[in-house]
Amino acid sequence: MATFGLIEYKDASPEVKAVYDDIMATRQTDYINNFWKAIAAHPATLRQTWESIKQIMAPGALDPLTKELIYLAVSATNQCGYCLASHTAGAVAKGATKEMLGELLAVVGMANETNALAGGFQVEIDEQFKTHA
Amino acid sequence: MATFGLIEYKDASPEVKAVYDDIMATRQTDYINNFWKAIAAHPATLRQTWESIKQIMAPGALDPLTKELIYLAVSATNQCGYCLASHTAGAVAKGATKEMLGELLAVVGMANETNALAGGFQVEIDEQFKTHA
Amino acid sequence: MATFGLIEYKDASPEVKAVYDDIMATRQTDYINNFWKAIAAHPATLRQTWESIKQIMAPGALDPLTKELIYLAVSATNQCGYCLASHTAGAVAKGATKEMLGELLAVVGMANETNALAGGFQVEIDEQFKTHA
Amino acid sequence: MATFGLIEYKDASPEVKAVYDDIMATRQTDYINNFWKAIAAHPATLRQTWESIKQIMAPGALDPLTKELIYLAVSATNQCGYCLASHTAGAVAKGATKEMLGELLAVVGMANETNALAGGFQVEIDEQFKTHA
Amino acid sequence: MATFGLIEYKDASPEVKAVYDDIMATRQTDYINNFWKAIAAHPATLRQTWESIKQIMAPGALDPLTKELIYLAVSATNQCGYCLASHTAGAVAKGATKEMLGELLAVVGMANETNALAGGFQVEIDEQFKTHA
Amino acid sequence: MATFGLIEYKDASPEVKAVYDDIMATRQTDYINNFWKAIAAHPATLRQTWESIKQIMAPGALDPLTKELIYLAVSATNQCGYCLASHTAGAVAKGATKEMLGELLAVVGMANETNALAGGFQVEIDEQFKTHA
Repeated sequence: MATFGLIEYKDASPEVKAVYDDIMATRQTDYINNFWKAIAAHPATLRQTWESIKQIMAPGALDPLTKELIYLAVSATNQCGYCLASHTAGAVAKGATKEMLGELLAVVGMANETNALAGGFQVEIDEQFKTHA
Repeated sequence: MATFGLIEYKDASPEVKAVYDDIMATRQTDYINNFWKAIAAHPATLRQTWESIKQIMAPGALDPLTKELIYLAVSATNQCGYCLASHTAGAVAKGATKEMLGELLAVVGMANETNALAGGFQVEIDEQFKTHA
Repeated sequence: MATFGLIEYKDASPEVKAVYDDIMATRQTDYINNFWKAIAAHPATLRQTWESIKQIMAPGALDPLTKELIYLAVSATNQCGYCLASHTAGAVAKGATKEMLGELLAVVGMANETNALAGGFQVEIDEQFKTHA
Repeated sequence: MATFGLIEYKDASPEVKAVYDDIMATRQTDYINNFWKAIAAHPATLRQTWESIKQIMAPGALDPLTKELIYLAVSATNQCGYCLASHTAGAVAKGATKEMLGELLAVVGMANETNALAGGFQVEIDEQFKTHA
Repeated sequence: MATFGLIEYKDASPEVKAVYDDIMATRQTDYINNFWKAIAAHPATLRQTWESIKQIMAPGALDPLTKELIYLAVSATNQCGYCLASHTAGAVAKGATKEMLGELLAVVGMANETNALAGGFQVEIDEQFKTHA
Repeated sequence: MATFGLIEYKDASPEVKAVYDDIMATRQTDYINNFWKAIAAHPATLRQTWESIKQIMAPGALDPLTKELIYLAVSATNQCGYCLASHTAGAVAKGATKEMLGELLAVVGMANETNALAGGFQVEIDEQFKTHA
């Protein structure tokens, strides 16, 4: 069970309700998932986290589906069960196909493999990789 | 220094040279980066790793730039210095702009933050996230 | 289920019982939590781990509650479900309020975010941070 | 070198300068450390990250030194070299003694050890740890 | 539930069946564990992963039990629940005793502890450790 | 530079000297590596860490070389640069060949890959893996 339980809309303070309302309006849904209901126990964290996510996940130079796939890549690397469940659902909702998710996870697996190899073989950085852009 | 040093093309065995040749042909470059020269100390690992990467990073349901961005997301999460240097260069070579990399890292940062929050608040998975596709 | 099951007090060897007795006496409780019952399958690990924890978690320059919060910070970062459950309970038992735990997790989330950003942007260490104390 | 180099105050856009000014005013210093100069390449990330850190690290139910110690605990767990250097300096500036840092790292080491043991022995969560607060 | 469910032998495509057949023949078992049934949703990942594992886990300079123990060490460090369950079973099947697994996990715990200490104390690498072999 | 610098034998307190003496006697060397000199700033951590390592790394059901390889597996997974350098040297000193280290790192890479895949595909644990030994 979540550390402080889940705060339902009807039981929420006005500050929490305002965030819930914005989540539902922004995402065009009437569902608030457990992550928000759990962190609502600390309203400042709820508000800051939502404000940041709202801005960062909005369309920009990267489209929302790509951003969702990146979220999944991080969550698989960190073994975050909740995040994998919620962002897999999110990616599917944004149009990810089975083939896309399969390729995503293959890349994630490969990256975790070669990260360990690069560390394990103590590879030094190539001179030409030291400057960019 | 890499654990077993870097194996240059001229000093490589035929088995290693064959992989180097395929890397250069596939990537249309005459540069072999240190990662390959370091793991070449164990030719079976060199060959298997290259074969897997070659297939996984090829265009498919996800384009090569998206795959490169996913690689970066994993590498930033794992704090793999070599991988960040080489795949940042790779992403730029494939067309990533400063704005794209900035957004990518913002999403990666956010995902690492909310992964920790989801774990820390011990959020249970929503029923509706338990089935997919 | 724990790899080797849980060893209850009545079934324990004298060596294991001695550790259980010391845990209960030190913590002023008659409850041995599953962690200890699970690692008791390897008595040397049980004894060494308990001896180390007993010394390290004792009051010192940092008070026991602060130490418990640090434990939680590490456990959230590592996505260790068991550790989050047991040390959240431990923190509450030592006086952590909802506000304290909320702030703790906000800092942990933030630290995981900026760790990824510092790695991802390949930030070099400031000269003035290279010497300390 | 940082991916996009370091943006100095004199070269910064008005949006970036405004954040730099607020960092210096809030921290009562005229020094902007490399982390900010590196992420300034993506002004939205600079602004959001600073706004979040400013709020989260302010005094609250936990004092600023405790928050800095928690930051260090996460950074040591993630092997983030930059973060360890900057937050060790930050902790010392806020009054951390050698003894406090020593105890902190002992707890962090212990937590990483027992996290691995709890996972490795596949310990199931005690019933009594499943509800809190 | 696995993201795309579990693909049973009778429902598998010829490509997937061929991999399942090779797994069963190589491992001399008629049991396909869930990992393979789950990743079979993306046949290319199934095939590549199996081919790599088959080669890497075969007897070589290290015996199969040692390789299985190394797998466990990584899985405990990453908090991968599935991997810990399957590779603990695999290690036992290959002859690991309770004493061996206990010592393994003690080393894994210790390594995670000193990794955090080495990072946390910002220890610089000894000159004599910079060259090898 | 290490957070509190490196404490040389001639400058060490009697408590620290006693640990250094035991390290040198146990390892039959006159070299104290930087890890110990760095954590000696907090003598209790030095003493406890050494006592634990001394016992855990001693020959038992697993031989010292296998234990050293396990240490490397964890260190590569955690991207701990210092630990990779010191334990690679340690493994070589205990007889690890290039072929053994190559196979070790191949297994470590593979384990990190499949850990991410098992998490990413949200694979549920097979019933038969839920009981052991």
